[in-house]
Amino acid sequence: MHSRRQRLAEALDRAGAQAFLSQSRSNQLYFLDHPDPSTVISRGSAPAILFSAEKTVVFPGIWISNACRDMLPNCEVIPCDLGDPPPMEQLEAYLKKAGLKKLLSDQLQPQIPGTEIVVDDVGALLRRTKDERDLAFMREAARIADLGIRTAFKAVRPGLTTLEVTAEGTAAMLKAGAEYAVMNPAVGIGTYYLDSGENPRRVIREGDMLFIDMACYVHGYLGDMTRAAIIGEGTPQQRDLLATVHQAYRAASQAMVPGAEGRRIYQGVVDTYAAKGWAKYFVHHLSHGLGLGADRPGINRESGDVLQAGDALSCEPGVYVPGIGGARVENMIYVSASGPEELTRCPIVPELGL
Amino acid sequence: MHSRRQRLAEALDRAGAQAFLSQSRSNQLYFLDHPDPSTVISRGSAPAILFSAEKTVVFPGIWISNACRDMLPNCEVIPCDLGDPPPMEQLEAYLKKAGLKKLLSDQLQPQIPGTEIVVDDVGALLRRTKDERDLAFMREAARIADLGIRTAFKAVRPGLTTLEVTAEGTAAMLKAGAEYAVMNPAVGIGTYYLDSGENPRRVIREGDMLFIDMACYVHGYLGDMTRAAIIGEGTPQQRDLLATVHQAYRAASQAMVPGAEGRRIYQGVVDTYAAKGWAKYFVHHLSHGLGLGADRPGINRESGDVLQAGDALSCEPGVYVPGIGGARVENMIYVSASGPEELTRCPIVPELGL
Repeated sequence: MHSRRQRLAEALDRAGAQAFLSQSRSNQLYFLDHPDPSTVISRGSAPAILFSAEKTVVFPGIWISNACRDMLPNCEVIPCDLGDPPPMEQLEAYLKKAGLKKLLSDQLQPQIPGTEIVVDDVGALLRRTKDERDLAFMREAARIADLGIRTAFKAVRPGLTTLEVTAEGTAAMLKAGAEYAVMNPAVGIGTYYLDSGENPRRVIREGDMLFIDMACYVHGYLGDMTRAAIIGEGTPQQRDLLATVHQAYRAASQAMVPGAEGRRIYQGVVDTYAAKGWAKYFVHHLSHGLGLGADRPGINRESGDVLQAGDALSCEPGVYVPGIGGARVENMIYVSASGPEELTRCPIVPELGL
Repeated sequence: MHSRRQRLAEALDRAGAQAFLSQSRSNQLYFLDHPDPSTVISRGSAPAILFSAEKTVVFPGIWISNACRDMLPNCEVIPCDLGDPPPMEQLEAYLKKAGLKKLLSDQLQPQIPGTEIVVDDVGALLRRTKDERDLAFMREAARIADLGIRTAFKAVRPGLTTLEVTAEGTAAMLKAGAEYAVMNPAVGIGTYYLDSGENPRRVIREGDMLFIDMACYVHGYLGDMTRAAIIGEGTPQQRDLLATVHQAYRAASQAMVPGAEGRRIYQGVVDTYAAKGWAKYFVHHLSHGLGLGADRPGINRESGDVLQAGDALSCEPGVYVPGIGGARVENMIYVSASGPEELTRCPIVPELGL
């Protein structure tokens, strides 16, 4: 049994449960016994997978039934062809036959007579501390994200649209092996819009502040980063804003050590911006977890986890000031026992192709 | 008042309601008074917009507050800065002050004292029949999707991965002005996997059956199509399978006339495949609606709308036969009064760059 499954078996034992019922893609990819489960469950998730110490039972649904049957030789796959009962009915029948009394589950379940199902996402808990396999895939995701950002910023020149620029970065990431890649640009002189107000067909002009936030998935793992730049010299206020974001990033990322309290790191960023009178313009989270999805730890205004060795998270301070502009820098950070390691290797000042 | 809002006002009148409360992006983009609302609400949706005969009130939430304030001069925008009450609280206060007694809403709402809120998505109903503006944007989305598919298939050659091929198509769509583009390839000799079992890093080989399904968004409108091909000569069974899918597509698309019953069109496809013994391998829908999202009409195994002049929908028969392979063809169809018009112009047999 590989060690992820070993740790799951121990968690089930402690809870007095016989199996873990998973409907979340993150947990399914994490626990499946396959060299690259993201090529089996390429999108979405299997309707249900039952992981116990002894075996794995997959209820694949009609769209992925053939693939699971052929590609998961170490699992019991309950086929679902046209006309068969839906997977959740098959699950219910299976549980009755197998006599499983208690399950943990990563999703709220309808009641199934004879089986107690407790919502307890032990998968998310176990996934928090990254193992060697996680790290290898995350480094690859970070490398490909780096390539995308470098390629996009090298393509920047006044007269092109942000779509033309991000097309280059997206293509580079797909060619390098990302199964999915999307770039969310925000561009404009005096850009202080976040999730809105972006016309990606607008032409880039001298004096713009440009930031590109990007995400890709590589073997199911998120690659995610952001870089910001001024097109040309910019104004003194724009240069000050960009330098302040860089300063906030450096301080926050260096504080990401085991035992650090997230809320203190967040407050440090607030203080940096407050010194410029911009505290009210830092409106979003500082960190989300990294990995296969829905990952801990997170750091935002309302809550901040205490960091542990083995955590992986983004660090992305950004500030968006009406009349000046907006900027964000985001790197992927691994919290090792000896301190923060930047999985993102691209310099925080991107090279423009001007 | 533009005619979409005129029709909405009439629908509200008939229901005895004073306003339409919208949380769905599709409806927000449809009714907002702006030349291209997709550049204002670039992603996601505003937490709430209230459309009445007299005016539009936008409750934007903190991330998009500045953009809405600056870019929607014809709307009342309730600003949301850091520390302000959340948008739904502001909505409640607004409703109380304005004395609105009855609203229709496109989403289930928490109770708000003093206002009756009826879940009735009149927006989806009105959006079904396409107007000139819809058609112009949909033709543009179809044109860009065409370009993506042509570019990708021209890049196909044995020895490349599907990622390398779809990267070319994706980049072409972004450069041509799609704000978002994603290609979902499925490749493999004997491919009969649908939403699973795709390793996009697998190298394309002589004898493979390849299909590429693709989606892009252009000014908020979906562009969507699929093409299939055999790499090289293929086997007689593979050629028969591909020809049968083409035949099923032609018959189904030509049947998409006003008054046609969706379930009969669906049955026609089932019969075509049944004649080959493949009925059980046609497992998905035939059609989804097209437009700004969550569009009617749809045609699937369980239900089929009766088609009306002004409808727009996909036509995408596909069949995935163990031991032979899988193929799907998908075009965008506009149901005009005089019959089906293919918005997709790319030939159903794509040109390969072999």
